[in-house]
Amino acid sequence: MNSLTPLSSKLTSCQSMSRLRQLQACSIHSNVVKHNYGPATPQTMTGSLAANLMGHQNTTGVAARRMLSTSNKLSVTCQQLIMEEYGEPEKVVKMQSVELPSLKPGEVLIKMIATTINPSDINTIQGMYAVKPDLPCILGNEGVAEVIEVSSEGEKGPLQVGDWVIPVMNAYGTWRSHAIGTHDEFTKLPKGMDAAAAATLSVNPTTAYRMLKDFVKLEKGDLVIQNAGNSGVGRAVIQLCAHYGYKSINVVRDRPAIAELKKELMDMGATMVLTERELRVSRELRAMEKPPLALNCVSGKSATELIRLMRDGGVMVTYGGMARQPVTVPVGSLIFSDVRLVGYWQTRWSLNPANQEAKKEMLSDLCEFFKKGTMVVPPHKMVPHTDYMKALADAMPADGQVGCKQILTFN
Amino acid sequence: MNSLTPLSSKLTSCQSMSRLRQLQACSIHSNVVKHNYGPATPQTMTGSLAANLMGHQNTTGVAARRMLSTSNKLSVTCQQLIMEEYGEPEKVVKMQSVELPSLKPGEVLIKMIATTINPSDINTIQGMYAVKPDLPCILGNEGVAEVIEVSSEGEKGPLQVGDWVIPVMNAYGTWRSHAIGTHDEFTKLPKGMDAAAAATLSVNPTTAYRMLKDFVKLEKGDLVIQNAGNSGVGRAVIQLCAHYGYKSINVVRDRPAIAELKKELMDMGATMVLTERELRVSRELRAMEKPPLALNCVSGKSATELIRLMRDGGVMVTYGGMARQPVTVPVGSLIFSDVRLVGYWQTRWSLNPANQEAKKEMLSDLCEFFKKGTMVVPPHKMVPHTDYMKALADAMPADGQVGCKQILTFN
Repeated sequence: MNSLTPLSSKLTSCQSMSRLRQLQACSIHSNVVKHNYGPATPQTMTGSLAANLMGHQNTTGVAARRMLSTSNKLSVTCQQLIMEEYGEPEKVVKMQSVELPSLKPGEVLIKMIATTINPSDINTIQGMYAVKPDLPCILGNEGVAEVIEVSSEGEKGPLQVGDWVIPVMNAYGTWRSHAIGTHDEFTKLPKGMDAAAAATLSVNPTTAYRMLKDFVKLEKGDLVIQNAGNSGVGRAVIQLCAHYGYKSINVVRDRPAIAELKKELMDMGATMVLTERELRVSRELRAMEKPPLALNCVSGKSATELIRLMRDGGVMVTYGGMARQPVTVPVGSLIFSDVRLVGYWQTRWSLNPANQEAKKEMLSDLCEFFKKGTMVVPPHKMVPHTDYMKALADAMPADGQVGCKQILTFN
Repeated sequence: MNSLTPLSSKLTSCQSMSRLRQLQACSIHSNVVKHNYGPATPQTMTGSLAANLMGHQNTTGVAARRMLSTSNKLSVTCQQLIMEEYGEPEKVVKMQSVELPSLKPGEVLIKMIATTINPSDINTIQGMYAVKPDLPCILGNEGVAEVIEVSSEGEKGPLQVGDWVIPVMNAYGTWRSHAIGTHDEFTKLPKGMDAAAAATLSVNPTTAYRMLKDFVKLEKGDLVIQNAGNSGVGRAVIQLCAHYGYKSINVVRDRPAIAELKKELMDMGATMVLTERELRVSRELRAMEKPPLALNCVSGKSATELIRLMRDGGVMVTYGGMARQPVTVPVGSLIFSDVRLVGYWQTRWSLNPANQEAKKEMLSDLCEFFKKGTMVVPPHKMVPHTDYMKALADAMPADGQVGCKQILTFN
């Protein structure tokens, strides 16, 4: 069996892109995909945290705490959620305690504040995601932590005790109470962030932000059409569009409380909220300028509907396949309407070294938006990490409609 | 009833792009599309030829000839193939003679040498193409003509008697013995071109050329994969790839004489020729680098097969829908493999004012390739224009496999 490592630590930064391609190649035929998961972290990770974890797998402990080790240095017990095999979350996710070593020169110790359970985490655990990490692994793709110790030896880094940070890389393995890493493995957040906003920053808001920035040069007043308007990304799109002066046309699934949902999204800044059925017949929509950008999280028939409504030369960005159906494009839309289809995957974008400066700017913008109230965190529930079994169950309701994001907290 | 005009003359150059969009919008849902047809020509056209044709519709005459008109000037009788209603070609295509007026200052008279019957012409006549011209109209999308008279009055233009020319715009209405236009409506070809090569230059070789140039920056040794490898565009792709040093993987439909076809395409420079079935299992193909560019004229399942074989970040260019099925893309190919889907339509490219310099360079390259033998004209048959009924029938064989391009000649 492999030694226990965080999802990302199997890949050095040099290997990551080619390995990522391998992983993608294995899963290219899968229609069961969700955005934002991927394995990669700097080599330092492999050399420090992952290696340090070896041999500590069976250490037990109830709470993270400093204690005297045999070498007379304080040590920390980390509680972490892992899986050793793929399967249904309630069966394969386990909590484990490991004793962390003392810091090496240049390292910092972080204590997790809050970490999110995303649909891609569930899919990863089920073995249905594009990325299939080597097992066992520490789960979790995003979260916010506090720096609680900085090594006094080695090169001085930017982080100080009390700073709030998020991991630089996706798929870091955030479902754990503590972690050790080097300064460059973490991005420092500005002071005064809300914990839930910080914990949910790295996946959905970033995906929304990039999809609005990177594919079409939008002008104020332009329409953006999207399905899954009620999703985490969908809500971020609505708020960002309102901020930038774009009009958002938001398609949602019909449901008993549709009026309340529509009001909620309209209050958030949506220009129009339509059910799939309303989308097909809306005269009001057809009287407007056509959208040059469509964002597709559903695929199947829903994607085809969006394509038919787009402006000539428009771009549809696919970032999800909730309908578990492929995207079907009329040939005429490609040839005569010049519609282009692309995909967006936050992990790939994030791994690209060329994007690191843009990432800093993006996180700075998004933190500002959350602090000012330009963006608000979607409905969520903060759950103590020890109740992870209930949180996992609540993250995958029987009707498939996740109304409330589960966020694990570590106190 | 409208006055008789060439397909393109209903649109001035100013109107053409917005009108084109309208036309496209009407047909966006159609899966029955082929490349390269469109309405547009400079305003001069509307002011000269189209207007001049009014009132001459019922003039009869067997051969084009100069004759004395009432104003004592020589005039020309033009034989032209027109349609007054959509339908099956054998029922709705008619030959008509009209007397052309004498030249105005700045105009030239051209005599058609050879003009092609393309699948898009058949689809247009059947009313199944994206562009539905106002009727009646003169048919024909490409052809080569000789300048036989140049007005001695008005501004001097570049054309001289004896020059070979092709119309600048697609959908010019080339199925006619003569036409009058201004110098800027025609592109002069270099001396020494073969008539069949010149007559088939504007649609298939240009489509192949642009698809290889405009979407992926190919390097020598890169793979290009395409279906419809035996089509006019397909053969041009094979020859251009061989010339530029790219490897071409060519998918063709299985048929009784498959060995002969394979040999023919391999002799032409193909790297590999595979039937659809062979494509799905070829180990040799899977041992090669993956193609960054796929060219799709078939759509349906064939397109999905190509997508699965592409390199991460690759582009599939769709230019036809022979299977009469939409393009179906696995969601994972978009999100995780970053495959992009675009369409190519020669008419749109050709209409874009920004492309006029590139068009000159392209035609110069292609003429050179045909003169040097780098490219050869696909199997074709030169048919006197008076036998147009047989040529039309031969252009749409019952099995749908057009083995031999029909080219109408005017002698």
